[in-house]
Amino acid sequence: MKVKLASNYGFCFGVKRAIKIAEDYKNSSTMGPLIHNQDEINRLRNDFNVGLYTNLSDVKDHDTVIIRTHGIPKDDLKNLRAQKAKIINATCPFVTTPQQIVKKMSKEGYSILIFGDADHPEVKGVQSYGEDQNDVHIILEPSDIENLVFKNNKIATVAQTTKKKEKYLEIVNALILKNKEVRVFNTICDATFENQDAARDLSKEVDVMIVIGGKNSSNTKQLHSICLENCADSYLIENETELQNSWFLNKKLCGITAGASTPDWIIQQVVEKVESQN
Amino acid sequence: MKVKLASNYGFCFGVKRAIKIAEDYKNSSTMGPLIHNQDEINRLRNDFNVGLYTNLSDVKDHDTVIIRTHGIPKDDLKNLRAQKAKIINATCPFVTTPQQIVKKMSKEGYSILIFGDADHPEVKGVQSYGEDQNDVHIILEPSDIENLVFKNNKIATVAQTTKKKEKYLEIVNALILKNKEVRVFNTICDATFENQDAARDLSKEVDVMIVIGGKNSSNTKQLHSICLENCADSYLIENETELQNSWFLNKKLCGITAGASTPDWIIQQVVEKVESQN
Repeated sequence: MKVKLASNYGFCFGVKRAIKIAEDYKNSSTMGPLIHNQDEINRLRNDFNVGLYTNLSDVKDHDTVIIRTHGIPKDDLKNLRAQKAKIINATCPFVTTPQQIVKKMSKEGYSILIFGDADHPEVKGVQSYGEDQNDVHIILEPSDIENLVFKNNKIATVAQTTKKKEKYLEIVNALILKNKEVRVFNTICDATFENQDAARDLSKEVDVMIVIGGKNSSNTKQLHSICLENCADSYLIENETELQNSWFLNKKLCGITAGASTPDWIIQQVVEKVESQN
Repeated sequence: MKVKLASNYGFCFGVKRAIKIAEDYKNSSTMGPLIHNQDEINRLRNDFNVGLYTNLSDVKDHDTVIIRTHGIPKDDLKNLRAQKAKIINATCPFVTTPQQIVKKMSKEGYSILIFGDADHPEVKGVQSYGEDQNDVHIILEPSDIENLVFKNNKIATVAQTTKKKEKYLEIVNALILKNKEVRVFNTICDATFENQDAARDLSKEVDVMIVIGGKNSSNTKQLHSICLENCADSYLIENETELQNSWFLNKKLCGITAGASTPDWIIQQVVEKVESQN
């Protein structure tokens, strides 16, 4: 069976980079799970002796600690330094950018608005860089703006990297109508949407489509649903053991894509098994 | 006849201010017509000896020259100074703001986008404050963005004061999607829209509505059209001589509004004549 991979699939740039860093720093530990995939965390522990801390207080002097892609709050970083940990920063550069923007704009006297989920580790990290925490506002919906009281009439805005641009525009539009200056930083990362676009394109040109990822992962289910729109024979699997021979009968070309938390080695195992089909 | 004036009508803040300045500087001259109303220009000439220059080269040493509400290009101002003219700046503060923003942002390395009419004196003045004229872009339609090449990926935007906010948002939205930073300055003045809103409200509560302004003035015709939606007996006149007794038969309350180029003294003459109706 001939196989074609989507032009974008699986891990984004920031996650790939963080895994490479973890592999380079054997015997280190990550602060919180590096990614949302237990198989990959097991692999890093077994093959590279990369451990996992869940609490800052567990870190011992001179430990090597990897900061994960989401980043961590400024004070946590300070505490890690105080504990004399060797810090390896695997914060995604696309997350470091809004952290630095919030720090700079806040110093320059702008009120800060973050479009994102206040409970998400990335947003907590970005938020922490505001000088005046009472003038850093986090909202998820354009309608939430009505309840905000900014200290300044000049506002700087950033967005959580995985948010949708359309909603970000709705929010900044409402701000522009009410304020003298709105400094809009487009910090949204296209990775999630690039995977979706690529899955859409590929599913239009193949006979059968395999989507690899967690059955409970919302971004994987989203990919599957997009593929089904264009290719009725689209299947969602977690690994190569779920592949069924019958799916490939009388098919010529199999497209493959994967959710954002699916490691390359799982994808590779699927590719090889599909290629071995008649 | 009882009369009620719209809560906003006629001259905006900037024009009222400029006329006051002209009255305060007897024997001066304006650079270009102060406002688009010949009756008012005649009044200033007859009552205050305020003259009119159409060309910079006509200005004589030590003349007192009034800069009109739209402002003038930076180099023209420089030339006036070189001619040792006494300069009285009646540029509307709402126009000075975008001039200063373009100057500052341009110095800080931003590409400049102006939403406005490239041929309008206000826009020509604002544009002139850009450091690098090849990186100051003027557009009227969101679709015009496609043809622009900015030198930087950080862009500062201002709008001509009389433009519509909805279209400005469309333009900045397109920019936000394509650029890392868009610094949006809301320089639109609400005066025109406030007159329209007030005319709409008033026309709903009166028996008869009078709109005073030039029959060819687009903003006056717009006011008339808004009033007609709510009050069938809405009339457009240029001055009190056009009022007809029959309009007020069996009416109780007459609403009055005026276009943006209608001087108060013409409005006052209409009010007095309507009030004298039975």
